[in-house]
Amino acid sequence: MIGRLNHVAIVVPDIAAAANLYRTALGANVSDPVDMPEHGVTTVFVTLPNTKIELLQPLGEKSPVQAFLDRNPSGGMHHVCYEVEDILAARDHLKAEGARVLGDGEPKIGAHGKPVLFLHPKDFCGTLVEIEQA
Amino acid sequence: MIGRLNHVAIVVPDIAAAANLYRTALGANVSDPVDMPEHGVTTVFVTLPNTKIELLQPLGEKSPVQAFLDRNPSGGMHHVCYEVEDILAARDHLKAEGARVLGDGEPKIGAHGKPVLFLHPKDFCGTLVEIEQA
Repeated sequence: MIGRLNHVAIVVPDIAAAANLYRTALGANVSDPVDMPEHGVTTVFVTLPNTKIELLQPLGEKSPVQAFLDRNPSGGMHHVCYEVEDILAARDHLKAEGARVLGDGEPKIGAHGKPVLFLHPKDFCGTLVEIEQA
Repeated sequence: MIGRLNHVAIVVPDIAAAANLYRTALGANVSDPVDMPEHGVTTVFVTLPNTKIELLQPLGEKSPVQAFLDRNPSGGMHHVCYEVEDILAARDHLKAEGARVLGDGEPKIGAHGKPVLFLHPKDFCGTLVEIEQA
């Protein structure tokens, strides 16, 4: 069912510093920061030959990644995102297998403009999993 | 400098259960478990179209991932591995940029039979980074 690894998301306390680190120390192709107020994050995309790393800094008072940063002040890996062909079919299969879908279970439009859902980390070995309709 | 994302490593408490979860709930292509006593882990490889997820369970008394599992009993994302063309050149560049290389700074032969180094998570936004000479 799952296809490509779309991205790994890393929450960071200072996105300018993180972008500089990936650009200079790791020598990667790094975008400018983009504020996404509707998602509560500022994002930098690190483009690798086969996938992306997304650096996320909380934006605004109700950022969905603020609690993670409070628990991990240095930052850390936040989630992985797997692509699926049909997000509703994927959701129904996952629910039938006993996985919990976060929120109301209906796909939302994610940061890439595509439908996404998040799966409960306790059902996936402590890893927050996003699925995105590719 | 960094090239492909070689893999994301996820430490799990029960590798048979984790393999079954990735095979059945996520419908992925999952290998049989492989014991790697020289690395202190049992590994399952989840092959995605563009990269790999490596599920790791501690093996033996001195497993390098046991402390992580003790802190995260449900498991969690442990590290990301980026490919580099020349690991010694990469190491020297990273050191010059102020990044700390773990251990004695000399590449070891990793689980894929290739030279690897690990970089201090405090220097990479709370993320343990492995570099592997591809």
